Amino acid sequence: MKGKGGAFSPRLFGGGLWSMMAMGQFYLFSLVLGTLGSLCVLFTVYWVQHWRGGFGWDGTNLMFNWHPVLMVTGMVVLYGAASLVYRLPQSWVGPKLPWKLLHAVLHLVAFILAVLGLVAVFNFHYHNRISNLYSLHSWLGITAVALFACQWLLGFTIFLLPWASLSLRSLLKPIHVFSGAIILSLSMASVLSGINEKLFFSLKNATAPYSSLPPEACFANITGMLVVAFVGIVLYILLVSSWKRPEPGVLTDRQLRFQLGPGSRPYPVAYMPVASGPSQ
Amino acid sequence: MKGKGGAFSPRLFGGGLWSMMAMGQFYLFSLVLGTLGSLCVLFTVYWVQHWRGGFGWDGTNLMFNWHPVLMVTGMVVLYGAASLVYRLPQSWVGPKLPWKLLHAVLHLVAFILAVLGLVAVFNFHYHNRISNLYSLHSWLGITAVALFACQWLLGFTIFLLPWASLSLRSLLKPIHVFSGAIILSLSMASVLSGINEKLFFSLKNATAPYSSLPPEACFANITGMLVVAFVGIVLYILLVSSWKRPEPGVLTDRQLRFQLGPGSRPYPVAYMPVASGPSQ
Repeated sequence: MKGKGGAFSPRLFGGGLWSMMAMGQFYLFSLVLGTLGSLCVLFTVYWVQHWRGGFGWDGTNLMFNWHPVLMVTGMVVLYGAASLVYRLPQSWVGPKLPWKLLHAVLHLVAFILAVLGLVAVFNFHYHNRISNLYSLHSWLGITAVALFACQWLLGFTIFLLPWASLSLRSLLKPIHVFSGAIILSLSMASVLSGINEKLFFSLKNATAPYSSLPPEACFANITGMLVVAFVGIVLYILLVSSWKRPEPGVLTDRQLRFQLGPGSRPYPVAYMPVASGPSQ
Repeated sequence: MKGKGGAFSPRLFGGGLWSMMAMGQFYLFSLVLGTLGSLCVLFTVYWVQHWRGGFGWDGTNLMFNWHPVLMVTGMVVLYGAASLVYRLPQSWVGPKLPWKLLHAVLHLVAFILAVLGLVAVFNFHYHNRISNLYSLHSWLGITAVALFACQWLLGFTIFLLPWASLSLRSLLKPIHVFSGAIILSLSMASVLSGINEKLFFSLKNATAPYSSLPPEACFANITGMLVVAFVGIVLYILLVSSWKRPEPGVLTDRQLRFQLGPGSRPYPVAYMPVASGPSQ
C-alpha cells in the first residue's frame, strides 16, 4: 500500500488526497455556515411567531415583529453570505464581472431588507407615539445601516463602474474588506443589544420575568448566540482563510489543488503558488 | 526646488519625507487611539460617578457601578492596547521575548480587571437576590471572558513557553490574532448591550425616561459610540495596517523607512521589502 502509485504514495497524497481534503473542508464550512444562517432566521421567525403573536403590517406589535426578522436576515445572514461570494472556488477563475454583480445584488437585497426592517420599527413607533432613535441599540443600528449604504455606494463606484484604475482598486480593496467586516460586527452588536432590549421589554410578567429565564428568554438568548457563531465563521472565512480569488497568474496552494481536482500534480508551470493571493 | 537634492527630489521624497509621513501617521493613530481609550474609561467613570451615585464595595448599587468601569477598562481598552504591542515600531527589532512578556502581562492585568468586574456584579446580585447569567448580555459577557481565559492560556503555552516549534507557532499565529479580534468584537457587543440594558433599568422615571433622551442617556450612548470607535481603530491597526513586526531578514517598505529614519535610502541590501511580513 506504500508503493509507487498506491493509496499513500507521495504523488496521490500531494494531489488527490489534499484536493479532496481542501474540497471537503470548504464544503464542511459552507454546510456549517448555511445551517447556522438558516437557524438564525428560523429561530427569529419562530420566536416572534410563537411568543410575540406573529406578523402584521398595521402599526401594532405585529408590525414591530418584522423588525428583528428583517434585520437578522438582511444585516447579518444575507450580508454575511454576500460578503463571501469571492471565497467560492467557482469564482476563482473566468471573468470576475458576474461575481461582482452577484456580490453587489445580494448586498443590495440585504440593504433593502434592512430598510424594510427600519420602516417596520419607525411605523410601529409612529402609531404608538414612541420616540425614535433614543436607545444605544438604535444608535448602533442606524450607524450600521448608514455605513452599509456608504460602503455599497463606494463599492459600486470604485469596483463595479469601469473608471477606477487597477492600482486604485488594489489600494482600496483591503479597506473595503475591512469596512465590510466592521459593519458586520456592528450589525451583530446591534442585533444582540436589540434582542436583549426586547426581552427586557416583553418579559415583565411577575410570574415569569426575564430573570427567571422562561422558555422564550432561553430560546431568544440562544438565537443571539447563533448570530455570534454565524458572524464569527463569516469573519474567519473572510479574513483568515486562503479561499480567495487569486490575482491573474497567482494561485495559493489550496486554490491550485482545488481547481486541478483529485490526482492532479500540485504545481504546473503556469501557476506560482503563494501563501495568499490578493486580487481586486 | 525640483533639482537634484532639493526638497522634492526623488531621493528625499523616497526616504526622509516618506519616513516622516510614516512616523507621523503612526503617532497620529496612537494619539487618536490613546485619546479614545482614555475617553472610554473617563466617560464610564463620570457616568456612574455623576448619575449613579459613585463607587463602593458593599453589595449595593455602588458596588455594581464598578462592573461597567472594570469591564470597559479591562475587556476593551487595556485588552485593545495589549493586542497592539507588536505594532509598536520599537518592537520590530531586537529580542522578541520582552515584548511577548509585555503582551502577556498587559493581557493578564486586563483579565484580572474583568474578573474583578464579574465579582462586582455577582456580589451585587447575591446581596440583592437577583439571578445571575439570565440576560443575553450576561451570556455574551461570560462567553467573552471564558474565551479570553482560553486565549491567554493557549497563547502562554504556545508562544511564551519554549517547547513549541517555529512551524507550529507560524501555523497558529493567524488563528491567535483572529481569535483575539473576535473576542474584542464580542466584548464590544457585550459592553454595548450592557450600557443599553443599564439605561433601561435606571431611566424609568416618568418625567425623564430613557425615551426622552435625558442628559445621562445621551452621555452613556456617546460612551457606547466611543467604545465602537476605539474597537474599530484597534481592529484596523491589528488586521489591516502594515505596522507589524517583520520576520527576521524581511521588512515591509514602511517598517524599513521607519527604522532607518529621515533621509535614509529606502532599500539597503540587508533587507528585502515585502507587502506584509509575518512573524511569530
